[in-house]
Amino acid sequence: MRPSGRALDQMREVSIETGVTKHAEGSCLIRVGDTHVLCTASVDERVPPFLRNTGLGWVTAEYGMLPRATTTRMRREAKDGQSGRTQEIQRLIGRSLRAGIDRVALGERQIVVDCDVIQADGGTRCASICGGWVALRLAVNALMKAGDVISDPLGAPVSAVSCGLYAGQAVLDLDYPEDSEAGMDGNFVMTGDRLIEVQCSAEGSTFSQDQFGSLMGLAIKGCGELMKMQKGAVS
Amino acid sequence: MRPSGRALDQMREVSIETGVTKHAEGSCLIRVGDTHVLCTASVDERVPPFLRNTGLGWVTAEYGMLPRATTTRMRREAKDGQSGRTQEIQRLIGRSLRAGIDRVALGERQIVVDCDVIQADGGTRCASICGGWVALRLAVNALMKAGDVISDPLGAPVSAVSCGLYAGQAVLDLDYPEDSEAGMDGNFVMTGDRLIEVQCSAEGSTFSQDQFGSLMGLAIKGCGELMKMQKGAVS
Amino acid sequence: MRPSGRALDQMREVSIETGVTKHAEGSCLIRVGDTHVLCTASVDERVPPFLRNTGLGWVTAEYGMLPRATTTRMRREAKDGQSGRTQEIQRLIGRSLRAGIDRVALGERQIVVDCDVIQADGGTRCASICGGWVALRLAVNALMKAGDVISDPLGAPVSAVSCGLYAGQAVLDLDYPEDSEAGMDGNFVMTGDRLIEVQCSAEGSTFSQDQFGSLMGLAIKGCGELMKMQKGAVS
Amino acid sequence: MRPSGRALDQMREVSIETGVTKHAEGSCLIRVGDTHVLCTASVDERVPPFLRNTGLGWVTAEYGMLPRATTTRMRREAKDGQSGRTQEIQRLIGRSLRAGIDRVALGERQIVVDCDVIQADGGTRCASICGGWVALRLAVNALMKAGDVISDPLGAPVSAVSCGLYAGQAVLDLDYPEDSEAGMDGNFVMTGDRLIEVQCSAEGSTFSQDQFGSLMGLAIKGCGELMKMQKGAVS
Amino acid sequence: MRPSGRALDQMREVSIETGVTKHAEGSCLIRVGDTHVLCTASVDERVPPFLRNTGLGWVTAEYGMLPRATTTRMRREAKDGQSGRTQEIQRLIGRSLRAGIDRVALGERQIVVDCDVIQADGGTRCASICGGWVALRLAVNALMKAGDVISDPLGAPVSAVSCGLYAGQAVLDLDYPEDSEAGMDGNFVMTGDRLIEVQCSAEGSTFSQDQFGSLMGLAIKGCGELMKMQKGAVS
Amino acid sequence: MRPSGRALDQMREVSIETGVTKHAEGSCLIRVGDTHVLCTASVDERVPPFLRNTGLGWVTAEYGMLPRATTTRMRREAKDGQSGRTQEIQRLIGRSLRAGIDRVALGERQIVVDCDVIQADGGTRCASICGGWVALRLAVNALMKAGDVISDPLGAPVSAVSCGLYAGQAVLDLDYPEDSEAGMDGNFVMTGDRLIEVQCSAEGSTFSQDQFGSLMGLAIKGCGELMKMQKGAVS
Repeated sequence: MRPSGRALDQMREVSIETGVTKHAEGSCLIRVGDTHVLCTASVDERVPPFLRNTGLGWVTAEYGMLPRATTTRMRREAKDGQSGRTQEIQRLIGRSLRAGIDRVALGERQIVVDCDVIQADGGTRCASICGGWVALRLAVNALMKAGDVISDPLGAPVSAVSCGLYAGQAVLDLDYPEDSEAGMDGNFVMTGDRLIEVQCSAEGSTFSQDQFGSLMGLAIKGCGELMKMQKGAVS
Repeated sequence: MRPSGRALDQMREVSIETGVTKHAEGSCLIRVGDTHVLCTASVDERVPPFLRNTGLGWVTAEYGMLPRATTTRMRREAKDGQSGRTQEIQRLIGRSLRAGIDRVALGERQIVVDCDVIQADGGTRCASICGGWVALRLAVNALMKAGDVISDPLGAPVSAVSCGLYAGQAVLDLDYPEDSEAGMDGNFVMTGDRLIEVQCSAEGSTFSQDQFGSLMGLAIKGCGELMKMQKGAVS
Repeated sequence: MRPSGRALDQMREVSIETGVTKHAEGSCLIRVGDTHVLCTASVDERVPPFLRNTGLGWVTAEYGMLPRATTTRMRREAKDGQSGRTQEIQRLIGRSLRAGIDRVALGERQIVVDCDVIQADGGTRCASICGGWVALRLAVNALMKAGDVISDPLGAPVSAVSCGLYAGQAVLDLDYPEDSEAGMDGNFVMTGDRLIEVQCSAEGSTFSQDQFGSLMGLAIKGCGELMKMQKGAVS
Repeated sequence: MRPSGRALDQMREVSIETGVTKHAEGSCLIRVGDTHVLCTASVDERVPPFLRNTGLGWVTAEYGMLPRATTTRMRREAKDGQSGRTQEIQRLIGRSLRAGIDRVALGERQIVVDCDVIQADGGTRCASICGGWVALRLAVNALMKAGDVISDPLGAPVSAVSCGLYAGQAVLDLDYPEDSEAGMDGNFVMTGDRLIEVQCSAEGSTFSQDQFGSLMGLAIKGCGELMKMQKGAVS
Repeated sequence: MRPSGRALDQMREVSIETGVTKHAEGSCLIRVGDTHVLCTASVDERVPPFLRNTGLGWVTAEYGMLPRATTTRMRREAKDGQSGRTQEIQRLIGRSLRAGIDRVALGERQIVVDCDVIQADGGTRCASICGGWVALRLAVNALMKAGDVISDPLGAPVSAVSCGLYAGQAVLDLDYPEDSEAGMDGNFVMTGDRLIEVQCSAEGSTFSQDQFGSLMGLAIKGCGELMKMQKGAVS
Repeated sequence: MRPSGRALDQMREVSIETGVTKHAEGSCLIRVGDTHVLCTASVDERVPPFLRNTGLGWVTAEYGMLPRATTTRMRREAKDGQSGRTQEIQRLIGRSLRAGIDRVALGERQIVVDCDVIQADGGTRCASICGGWVALRLAVNALMKAGDVISDPLGAPVSAVSCGLYAGQAVLDLDYPEDSEAGMDGNFVMTGDRLIEVQCSAEGSTFSQDQFGSLMGLAIKGCGELMKMQKGAVS
């Protein structure tokens, strides 16, 4: 029934390649089906002004798309400032990664996670969170190896997946053909068995509490699988 | 236990005053406790380019804050472009109101809903959705009275409320002192008994599925009360 | 002869409601006929860089219009930067209020006066100056009560009114229907019997010295009446 | 008593050199003492959208300063958008020139008058109006010679001069040393014996009606002298 | 003598991988040593306004850098508009590619070549031109295969290489450690044995005609090698 | 054969008038045929942040065009930010002038050279470099006379000229009619017999090494003549 022939609760194939750029303290190229995102984590010993002399660390994210990551070429955002959609996505990525880090243990430094979409086929923000965590994990490993961080500030992987109602059925991990037809969809961010973020919206439509419950169930399954992949990539 | 002395599931006092500006096709001043938002609905017979000659209508929203709506004066956004937070809020308001309207029945015209916060004390986006629906309802009434719209495009009121975990307890309708201390909070948008939007996030923290369930329960109660107020205001 | 039926030298009805927002140090809602402006005064203990360590205070103003304050909806300035007209108006308001304050007595602090037009029907800049002075007076009262300012830096109220040639006759306090038809018009700012600002211009037209003299006479009458209203509002 | 040794009612030396650039339809370099402004008038057969198919012409102005026109180098406005002051000045120049032209006789075309200050020593906006009118007159002459305009749309020259209170005395045509010390000053725009614009303001101060009257008297004298210079330059 | 141990006239290792993104009409990832650039060519059937109804085609280029393509993270240009350096580079790429195409044979359509630097180690603009031509060649092949273009508009490959004076010696294909120390350097663009662009500059220094001649000789050798690589990649 | 009747290797008439504005530390108006550029040099005792406490000086340049310097009026850049072309030109002027100055001898201060084109007829960037050097020389003379600079930081004049292929022939110093028809052209910057910058490009075309050699020969001749003019102007 799904355009890709997948089962309702089946994710796309996921691969995570680490160490893909020589400059960044942590980096990976995550592929979730045909969605490919290059994630880098950059350590900056200066924190934003509101955190100076607090001893607390910070993690923030930026998100971008190469102009031809999409079916038709998109205007490069460099010319016009970032759109509301882009800002919304990068705020979500940053919040999600911060929920999975102990800012005291990180120490007063900032890690900037850049997520640049090389090829888009739905679910770019979720892939960015999963890949972003891997890059973050690798950068923190480097800090610990150098003795700059003593106690590990990171716990279970932070993972994210989208679910939605496609042709009246709850499905896991929407690709672009499904996403563009879905009556409603949601993004779920988890770490271990805890929730970090739940965002469900229905463009021009509504949904029942039962339907919402089905999506939540699929998301828990999907995030569990993603966490295993993330652990594998960094071990 | 709550700073305001309210019960855990008790909303703030709500009032909705309609017809507050002579130029707008629909308008109201909604007060949810000390949060006051002026909402206007402006009918525009031209739709955005992507809808021309489709016969479909459109509803969009803009959100703003007067510089001294807050405890300390904020920079007027007019000087720097709208922040990511502002854009995120107005996209939410627009999506929510569109979910409650039949765009075929509205006909090929646009209604712009402006929500300007006069005084802020937490929950401004939820108050904007509730008040925005009232202004929209009044503008549509005017269109129907003039014979420009025949079949009513609006159904049950669209209402929204925030819930969160304050001092470890699930509470309904957070005011600013609660909101600034809450470990996590969420905004729920409903129409009748259907959900339109669920947004829960934990800044630097996580939450369990049970905690999420408690918030959902409170939100359903709060939205029910708000819908009664909205119906009363427009009848 | 005037669309409103007023006598040539008759002002619109004026009301000034103070204390309209709980956050600002001083605030009022001034209504001059159907022109309604919300004015707030915010005290900031930091002055602009050019005044640091001079012991001198500063008063500045910002002016805005809600998008549907006008007959047809206007583009929110937040999206495009402030227009030349807006900047011109807020520079006038700031200069006018500074002319009525003793900057040594105020001490090295800044007061920002925000004037936001809720509903426009002509004469918004004059209403902003009158209401802005009231908000400023209330904020200074608070500073004096707290002992932060010892000697009163404010004298007589600063008031402003527009006059113009409508249908060949000099009239006082133009409303929008008159303003849009007037061959020439002017704004006069006074404090006590002293002038602060005189701005007369003729869009695509000219005027004689006698005509100018008639406007000046009307303005002196109007400002006198406004000063009484302002004194009443703050006593 | 004046820094320059001039009498109270004495203008600076004025010269107007025409035809200073080969591309513009009309041009001049006006020198008012050490204030030098290059003015060009460019004919554009297209009018702004709001005038299309009305048969009416338009005159507009832009004002700029070379970065080192002033004592200390100023930031080039090209980098930051035009300041409120610049916009205010160019709006004044445009309004003033439009008051001296018959827009029906001009026909549906636009003339853009650019006033670029090469060297500033006070009174740049007044010099721009005087020089701008000369450039406009020459461009209209060219249109009439070519038969594109039949009936002369221009009447008496539009001239402008500043006056102010310096060391307690009313003085004509302030130069920079006077302008920076003046308690109040004003700009007067006239054509023949008619007024076009009166702008008097007192930065941080006030003035009496008598003082205002003295300035008006000086301005009438100064504008009379300027009109003679302008007529001479274009004959 | 060179930090990399290369001979003075030895290029870095070059690889060109084609078909790296599924959406673009033509694409490649070019690696010149540690400089990696992703190039895509997007066909747009609409040309810029100045070419409408001329029958002529157009090729243009955009250039970007991922934030962590460099040793230290760079500010994402999306936030501030493109820098002068970025604009200068993309203008060079566009001009170079246009010199190698027959715009009549291309027909009235536009091809946009995006060059995004994934990892930078000197010579990014030259790598962009070489890779950009490969992407362009592949996109044109697709147009010819589809019958949209009949006569091949492309001739010999367009290639580019940098040369410079490092430690007093003329060297070919500078990497970043050489580039940051070079007293002067130049970029040469060629197609076949013809020159397209020569840009030599000495930051804070000068060079003799003989030194310039040596660079030119190296460039001719390097471009010849690059053209072979480009031909191989597209055959 | 040339539209102006000049010989292939003949420059336009050049004049350099110094001391044209009373505020700048150095200034000149350079005329190269009908291309007229006003150049000023402004001394600033503060250097850019990256040079603080290094003891090194800096020279930078800005370039602008008056709106009617060209045949048809151009949009004032003040409204839209500087174009890529403008930035490219001013970067070239700054680099060229820095190549001719000893930054240690200049001492830790900055000189800003502004080049504003009053009238354009081709070759504005080259005229700007020549005139900019004259303004710089005069400003340095003033610093030396005041004893702020002891050892002369300037050597031979920095001069620049354009050459190109017009109607198949190599010609020196292109004016606008030639420039707009030239198949390729280049700008050459020299000081004494040393090269500073070589920029040759062929818009939509290519050129041989022999053709490039002919241009180089003409440029050396032209720069030699310009240096004599520059020396004469400052002696």
